[in-house]
Amino acid sequence: MDKTERNSVWSSRRKALFEVIFETDTPAGRTFDICLIVAIVISVLVVMLDSVSTVRTRFGGALNALEWFFTIVFTIEYGLRLWCVGNRRRYAASFFGVVDLLAFAPTWLGLLVPPVRYVLIIRLLRVLRIFRVFKLAQCLGEAQALMRALAAGRQRIFVFLFAVLTLVVIIGATMYLIEGPDNGFTSIPTGVYWAIVTLTTVGYGDISPQTPFGQFLASLVMILGYAIIAVPTGIVTVELARSDKKTPPTSRACRHCGRRAHDADAAFCKYCGGRL
Amino acid sequence: MDKTERNSVWSSRRKALFEVIFETDTPAGRTFDICLIVAIVISVLVVMLDSVSTVRTRFGGALNALEWFFTIVFTIEYGLRLWCVGNRRRYAASFFGVVDLLAFAPTWLGLLVPPVRYVLIIRLLRVLRIFRVFKLAQCLGEAQALMRALAAGRQRIFVFLFAVLTLVVIIGATMYLIEGPDNGFTSIPTGVYWAIVTLTTVGYGDISPQTPFGQFLASLVMILGYAIIAVPTGIVTVELARSDKKTPPTSRACRHCGRRAHDADAAFCKYCGGRL
Amino acid sequence: MDKTERNSVWSSRRKALFEVIFETDTPAGRTFDICLIVAIVISVLVVMLDSVSTVRTRFGGALNALEWFFTIVFTIEYGLRLWCVGNRRRYAASFFGVVDLLAFAPTWLGLLVPPVRYVLIIRLLRVLRIFRVFKLAQCLGEAQALMRALAAGRQRIFVFLFAVLTLVVIIGATMYLIEGPDNGFTSIPTGVYWAIVTLTTVGYGDISPQTPFGQFLASLVMILGYAIIAVPTGIVTVELARSDKKTPPTSRACRHCGRRAHDADAAFCKYCGGRL
Amino acid sequence: MDKTERNSVWSSRRKALFEVIFETDTPAGRTFDICLIVAIVISVLVVMLDSVSTVRTRFGGALNALEWFFTIVFTIEYGLRLWCVGNRRRYAASFFGVVDLLAFAPTWLGLLVPPVRYVLIIRLLRVLRIFRVFKLAQCLGEAQALMRALAAGRQRIFVFLFAVLTLVVIIGATMYLIEGPDNGFTSIPTGVYWAIVTLTTVGYGDISPQTPFGQFLASLVMILGYAIIAVPTGIVTVELARSDKKTPPTSRACRHCGRRAHDADAAFCKYCGGRL
Repeated sequence: MDKTERNSVWSSRRKALFEVIFETDTPAGRTFDICLIVAIVISVLVVMLDSVSTVRTRFGGALNALEWFFTIVFTIEYGLRLWCVGNRRRYAASFFGVVDLLAFAPTWLGLLVPPVRYVLIIRLLRVLRIFRVFKLAQCLGEAQALMRALAAGRQRIFVFLFAVLTLVVIIGATMYLIEGPDNGFTSIPTGVYWAIVTLTTVGYGDISPQTPFGQFLASLVMILGYAIIAVPTGIVTVELARSDKKTPPTSRACRHCGRRAHDADAAFCKYCGGRL
Repeated sequence: MDKTERNSVWSSRRKALFEVIFETDTPAGRTFDICLIVAIVISVLVVMLDSVSTVRTRFGGALNALEWFFTIVFTIEYGLRLWCVGNRRRYAASFFGVVDLLAFAPTWLGLLVPPVRYVLIIRLLRVLRIFRVFKLAQCLGEAQALMRALAAGRQRIFVFLFAVLTLVVIIGATMYLIEGPDNGFTSIPTGVYWAIVTLTTVGYGDISPQTPFGQFLASLVMILGYAIIAVPTGIVTVELARSDKKTPPTSRACRHCGRRAHDADAAFCKYCGGRL
Repeated sequence: MDKTERNSVWSSRRKALFEVIFETDTPAGRTFDICLIVAIVISVLVVMLDSVSTVRTRFGGALNALEWFFTIVFTIEYGLRLWCVGNRRRYAASFFGVVDLLAFAPTWLGLLVPPVRYVLIIRLLRVLRIFRVFKLAQCLGEAQALMRALAAGRQRIFVFLFAVLTLVVIIGATMYLIEGPDNGFTSIPTGVYWAIVTLTTVGYGDISPQTPFGQFLASLVMILGYAIIAVPTGIVTVELARSDKKTPPTSRACRHCGRRAHDADAAFCKYCGGRL
Repeated sequence: MDKTERNSVWSSRRKALFEVIFETDTPAGRTFDICLIVAIVISVLVVMLDSVSTVRTRFGGALNALEWFFTIVFTIEYGLRLWCVGNRRRYAASFFGVVDLLAFAPTWLGLLVPPVRYVLIIRLLRVLRIFRVFKLAQCLGEAQALMRALAAGRQRIFVFLFAVLTLVVIIGATMYLIEGPDNGFTSIPTGVYWAIVTLTTVGYGDISPQTPFGQFLASLVMILGYAIIAVPTGIVTVELARSDKKTPPTSRACRHCGRRAHDADAAFCKYCGGRL
């Protein structure tokens, strides 16, 4: 076997491997991706369980072994991906390339700095491949529709957030002045934290106004929050409704000019004026 | 009386009983169903009251007697249903068949395993028959409209839930790293639980960030939750609005063919093409 | 002065008084109503302040005197209303008639049963007259629009509430079985209370799941609550939008047939097909 | 140099300074505004950090020095603004004029009354100039669209708030009667505070019903809050949708007159009547 032949063999192997790892249309690629997703979900569960002290005390060894098993599997997989992909730099710099790297790197780093390993939870992002595997293209379409709706309302949301942040700092400082450190409002940042907890209607109750005047002001803030929470909902709803309108459900063609995209209840063609 | 005659008598009795138990149009069937619903509601209240320790101490005997009374009534009723229904297997395997069985079986099982009996609360599902009894067909229509709206937004909701779950696991793990077990975040699952409690704006306050950086991150999560809570509302609203358009409220009849259900602003009958 | 004359004098006095008390178009009636509303608001504030123990200790005598002053004023006013109104029975049985009676009766009853007097807060309902006084007819129109929107969504809201109640009882019983009395879920009704507190995203935190499985289930309930809270919002929004459509903003008339109520962007009359 | 010449020199200096301070189109004006915004944000952070006791203990001196630095800078800036602006009284009485004054006055007042200085947080409002600097005119347009939507729903919101306030006072008084001071409902105002905390779904949990009947009533209030929170959302959504219809997103130009801003489905130019 001379060098050229060997190169050609390797090249075809790389191509075959590429199809298994990166493609999802072939049975082998599909099987590989499903195994990968199962492995990712199990490995994330292992990391989560490992953080529960009672479980770690009892099954620490087994979890550790599993963790290293998945780390080595993901390391090898990453190496194979790098080897068989066409443009290595582009893959390594892509979103999934970085996530694939972060899926095992922390375990190795964890040998040096222990707490770093919980960063492994970022592995979960790899599961986003699930959309590609199960042909959830339409789901992705839906997600993009959601994203577009949010993006279209971007400026409104920005203005809204800016106003909320200004409001929240001023409310927080006011409550700090009124309630003071004795009632839990230890500083202005704490007051701002309280204002956010209240305006978003989360309401932990770890800090709550104690003086009558503070409670009166808090009541005003809550009723204000009532109106405020209505705004992003309204923005998103309107954007979603608008994006829906752009892709009309009917597709009747005009008899006269043949054009489509008429309203569901149009009686006349809006392009040529002919009766539909 | 020979055998055939006896069979015929029994057959007509079964038919009469079937009309009482399963039909709702006859006066007897209606009365039976109303009695049944009253019995179900009372028996559910008995189970609920029985769980209150002060009530059980004082009226335990009476509640127990009532419980057995209803159990025996429902057992007999189930037997009669099985006897008079045409296709026994299909009834026993249907939703209401299973619920009817679960309405009394736990009391008998409770003789062996005490806590099982509170499962009796599932009896409440039998009350869903109420829609059939009171001719709340339109209500069912409304429920179906709601269901259809939710089903139409199914994919969007699925994508949304998937994104929220991924987000929540990553936020939970981050907060676990920042706050640590000393501040109540005892494990990553606890962190995830906190993230869900916060993002949904429930905010119990049993776990809440204590460190300044944790509170800063929690604030970001809450403001994020602001935007996120707007999404399902927007989806449901748009779907409801769309489903409304498809079932117009007007009921003009066409002069030419007499058919109804035209769009509110239709100029021509969509069935016969005549001018409205 | 003979009897008939006296009667006629009294009759004209009754008429004059009726105009002052019941009418709002005359200057006297307007002045009377404004004084009345000020008196009502002050008397409600007096009742509220009277319930604050520190205030009662210091100003108890003054508050008590004020309370009796307002009670006597409202009693006399009620007597005058009864005297000068045309149909006494109808007024006494009307909404405002009952509220007017409840505005002073509890103080007299309070001589016998002390705590009854806080029921006086119901006086506040008398302030609803404010809409009539300040010609807030349009506001009333808006309120009626809201009411109509809610009424139109009545069946949907009923079905929704019924489903939520069934759900809440079953969730509450399940959590009672899982968490048990040791973790605060002392009975099934308590569990139902917790389920309502959680599903509505209020989240007091006075009762919260402690066991891991309980927290897992609570997370599911919260995410469910996410979807559920979207439903009434969607219903109300759609109903409001629909009621808006019924009163279109444009009022262009068709040149050919003279009819109105065209869509803002209609190019052809939808009644006669002529160009607008 | 005679007096007129000197006046003219000063006048041109004032004009140049005006362009730097008040204009944003020139490079100098732009640079000035960006520096100003950076200074404002830093000074607000200084005030916030100064309120944190641990930070104040360690860096109190530095923060104090920075505070005085910014105060003197803002004082000089205010003086220059007053000097170079055309109509001094109008500027001083305008929104930004008052905010500019409040941005440094509290520090000087703080020499006399210490806690007053935290009012400096109001400086943050100066950052609203950011919209002007970064040509966020469209954002301002969006903000105005939001404002107009809220203003259009003004009467509905007013009626809604009035109803909520009446409801909240009556619920608060009822809960005070049921729960009483022993369970945290120390007075009717406290009850009203609780009712607002509950209806807005904030739910601190600092006050929560303890008696079974109180919990039952609280459950009703929460489910009511469910319906109520849907109302402002519905109002804002409908108003936003309506305001969107009035300002269409398309920008087709008319072939005949070249004007734009036609409705998305207009068949004829609304300015010249030509076919689009």
